[in-house]
Amino acid sequence: MPETKLVKNAAGRSVPLKINGKPVIPYKGVGKHNVTGTKHGPKINTCKDFPSDGNKLVGTLKEALKKAGLKDGMTVSTHHHFRNGDLLANQLFDIAKEMGVKDLRWFPSASFPCHEHLIQYLEEGTIHHIEGSMNGALGRFASQGKMKGVGVLRSHGGRYQAVQDGEVKIDIAVIGAACADPFGNANGLYGDSATGLLGFALADSQYADKVIVVTDNMVPFPCVPWQIQGNYVDYAVEIDKLGDPDKIISGTTKITKSPDRVLLAEMTAQFCDETGIIRNGFSFQSGAGGTSLAVGEYFKKIMQEKGIKARFARGGSNKYLVSMLEEGLVDYILDGQTFDLEGVRSMAENQGHVWTSPFTSYNYHGKGNFAGLVDVAILGATEVDVNFNANVVTHSDGYLLHGIGGWQNCLFSKTVILPIPLFRDRIPVVVDEVTTLCGPGELIDVVVTERGIAVNPLRTDLLEKLKGSDLPITTIGELKDEAEKICGKPEKAHFDNQIIAVVKWVDGTVLDVVKKVR
Amino acid sequence: MPETKLVKNAAGRSVPLKINGKPVIPYKGVGKHNVTGTKHGPKINTCKDFPSDGNKLVGTLKEALKKAGLKDGMTVSTHHHFRNGDLLANQLFDIAKEMGVKDLRWFPSASFPCHEHLIQYLEEGTIHHIEGSMNGALGRFASQGKMKGVGVLRSHGGRYQAVQDGEVKIDIAVIGAACADPFGNANGLYGDSATGLLGFALADSQYADKVIVVTDNMVPFPCVPWQIQGNYVDYAVEIDKLGDPDKIISGTTKITKSPDRVLLAEMTAQFCDETGIIRNGFSFQSGAGGTSLAVGEYFKKIMQEKGIKARFARGGSNKYLVSMLEEGLVDYILDGQTFDLEGVRSMAENQGHVWTSPFTSYNYHGKGNFAGLVDVAILGATEVDVNFNANVVTHSDGYLLHGIGGWQNCLFSKTVILPIPLFRDRIPVVVDEVTTLCGPGELIDVVVTERGIAVNPLRTDLLEKLKGSDLPITTIGELKDEAEKICGKPEKAHFDNQIIAVVKWVDGTVLDVVKKVR
Repeated sequence: MPETKLVKNAAGRSVPLKINGKPVIPYKGVGKHNVTGTKHGPKINTCKDFPSDGNKLVGTLKEALKKAGLKDGMTVSTHHHFRNGDLLANQLFDIAKEMGVKDLRWFPSASFPCHEHLIQYLEEGTIHHIEGSMNGALGRFASQGKMKGVGVLRSHGGRYQAVQDGEVKIDIAVIGAACADPFGNANGLYGDSATGLLGFALADSQYADKVIVVTDNMVPFPCVPWQIQGNYVDYAVEIDKLGDPDKIISGTTKITKSPDRVLLAEMTAQFCDETGIIRNGFSFQSGAGGTSLAVGEYFKKIMQEKGIKARFARGGSNKYLVSMLEEGLVDYILDGQTFDLEGVRSMAENQGHVWTSPFTSYNYHGKGNFAGLVDVAILGATEVDVNFNANVVTHSDGYLLHGIGGWQNCLFSKTVILPIPLFRDRIPVVVDEVTTLCGPGELIDVVVTERGIAVNPLRTDLLEKLKGSDLPITTIGELKDEAEKICGKPEKAHFDNQIIAVVKWVDGTVLDVVKKVR
Repeated sequence: MPETKLVKNAAGRSVPLKINGKPVIPYKGVGKHNVTGTKHGPKINTCKDFPSDGNKLVGTLKEALKKAGLKDGMTVSTHHHFRNGDLLANQLFDIAKEMGVKDLRWFPSASFPCHEHLIQYLEEGTIHHIEGSMNGALGRFASQGKMKGVGVLRSHGGRYQAVQDGEVKIDIAVIGAACADPFGNANGLYGDSATGLLGFALADSQYADKVIVVTDNMVPFPCVPWQIQGNYVDYAVEIDKLGDPDKIISGTTKITKSPDRVLLAEMTAQFCDETGIIRNGFSFQSGAGGTSLAVGEYFKKIMQEKGIKARFARGGSNKYLVSMLEEGLVDYILDGQTFDLEGVRSMAENQGHVWTSPFTSYNYHGKGNFAGLVDVAILGATEVDVNFNANVVTHSDGYLLHGIGGWQNCLFSKTVILPIPLFRDRIPVVVDEVTTLCGPGELIDVVVTERGIAVNPLRTDLLEKLKGSDLPITTIGELKDEAEKICGKPEKAHFDNQIIAVVKWVDGTVLDVVKKVR
């Protein structure tokens, strides 16, 4: 197959020139790809073809899919606002199967373990392949070489970029919303399936050919605020139940209690304090993982002690961030998503929450984005190598088990810190070379482990500020050596030649491939 | 000139096939123009070409215009949020003149008497012509045949449509905002030049090649809410003063005290009551003119008496609408613009205000818009003829003195009522044939004058409901006869053959022309 012709990209990774039959561009380096061309121009519509009273209700999702012209080979998108509680994507493909439609490209903003149900459709051909995160079972299925097409992994910003630039043309977007009106205006704030935001569906609403909004909480026009604008929507559908509330949002997010991780968090916060990153008016982003949350709590303590505040924190909102907002320690939370019920409550009540989207925060093909304005991003990784390159999608055994999320996009923050254990289950996390390259080392500034902190030599400014510090500053090579001393030299993953997925960089170029596990 | 080849359009008006050298489509009838093609795809940008820390500040507007590449023949847009208090558009063209740039197409969302300053540039060639409303002196200048190009008059929705569809490609959009940050996020809510909303600049931000945000109130990132998103913005500029606050927003809007107009308002409200238009959950739009405001006050009284409320009112917000919102008589105000200080205050404080834009409310080339969802729109007109056709841009003497605003777009409301005096200054308002056709009669349902109410015969439903009414129901022909009885047969305007402007319909087709006054 011409598809398997490989070239070495700027990161030294062998990548194909075609994916699923379409030409792609190999990664050229950070900020090296010059972009040309124009944004995707969707078909012009006219009001005369839509109900004059604005009522776009159709009886069932099946009817809407028929009206939207669902047919073989189309690209259909869904979104992960309902996370592991999503009931909609499964229903959608059940209907596609019923209708006898084949070879669909599923373009989710992410898929979750609840979508294991769809493996049957990948096997029998209703779905040809998935472009989007494959968490858990679907990733394992792909890693076993069982998916017909090649998976394409994109960051949240990369997904917006791909849609905006016309790399991915969405035929039908199916947008589940906790609240909507018959015109198609929708939000994720109110109702049994409340999720907070609907930003992951923004690009789809703007650029898809047909847009279907599905809700279990239909309200009279106007549904406000309209996070999705009805002017982009073709059909509105009411169904009984979009999601399983317990699995959509955690009742409460939990800070780590593991002493090792608490130590990582404390070291990370001390590092930010000593290097002057924590100062009045600074900004930070930390995820909703246990360690990240703990970092946030240490930040809070430091701000309280110093009597300073942050200008903004980038969410996912959770109860810890909300408490900082409500105590006046941050002026604004710039939310991308919402992780717990406190976040949902606060978002509906508090003007200090600002909705962001992959467009505002992460799209690399815009006139700037917010990621670069963040002073420090605290991120995770499955592996980091001696060149500070990092991996977030595969484990060291080669299995594709995680999505990229906004991780690549956050690498553009002014300082990027990865607080990670030196090893997990006696498998080193700091390694010679990452199994899959997701983030180029030049963008990763600091690796904090329980046995030492490595600063990227490119950041001489940070190293200068750390002179005289009692933090255990070391080098990434020493960390790797120590990990190997404890765990032994790790065995490399065993791969077949078959490419089962590719990892795109934020500019749409191909950064690396994931191969079938042998 | 081939430009002057005229054809009769579906409204029987003779219109050219080319305007300013570009082909145009004659009006085909309401809902008759099938649209093809795709929306305008602006150039793809990349973050690597923008400051990594998001700081897009440049020192002066002149510097920003140079960086944006201002040159001969470009299309430059501005917006009328500052109304007659705008200082920005004049500064902009002063700079263009200084730079020696020629033949600009000025594409304002509207122009006001304060822009009389620009006539010198129309004369000496800095500005080639204006596409947009020309209120007052600029309209008179055009009507005298002095503008080099042909003016193109569009409704607010038609302006969005033209930009979205690529009919008008904006090279540089200059967006004045009461509040902005160095990334380019901007709103009209806070600061000395507060205007409420910035919706008229939305299309420009999305589709223009280069976007410059200018403010006299620069705040640290994030400027929230971001009515204009910095991700669309190339440069941010801080200047001393954007506008003259007294002229931006009236301190307070005033209801008419004229007994004749109060009568019109009362008759209109009674008409809406008797025909069942005013019912629990209804919706209405009335402008900020004295008569319209009075209609609103009568609506309020009727709602209070009946103990009912409206689901929404379409703004411009003003103190009367705000009082209805705050008394719980309307659930939401869907704001397009803001007419007085009470409106500005309430918008910043009250969640019942919902921002709309020409995209959500008026764009005819969308998947529906809000105009069609409004139960009743109360509008004005300079003339109405015996076929219910109406004119809002010229006076009977032929002079082009007003813009279209959202008027054409509002004609898609379920019932359209024009409360107008039968004559003004002894010149009939109800006439044989309107001087300039702006709205096709089939969309105009009711004409309310102090001497009788004419219902469009197409609205048999309304006529049915009025049986037994004590309202002075008559016919449009009788109204015209009565006007002529009182004022005499009006003299037609005297026109030269030169077309000085065209009136576009909401779908981009050419509805009528305006000729040079002899």
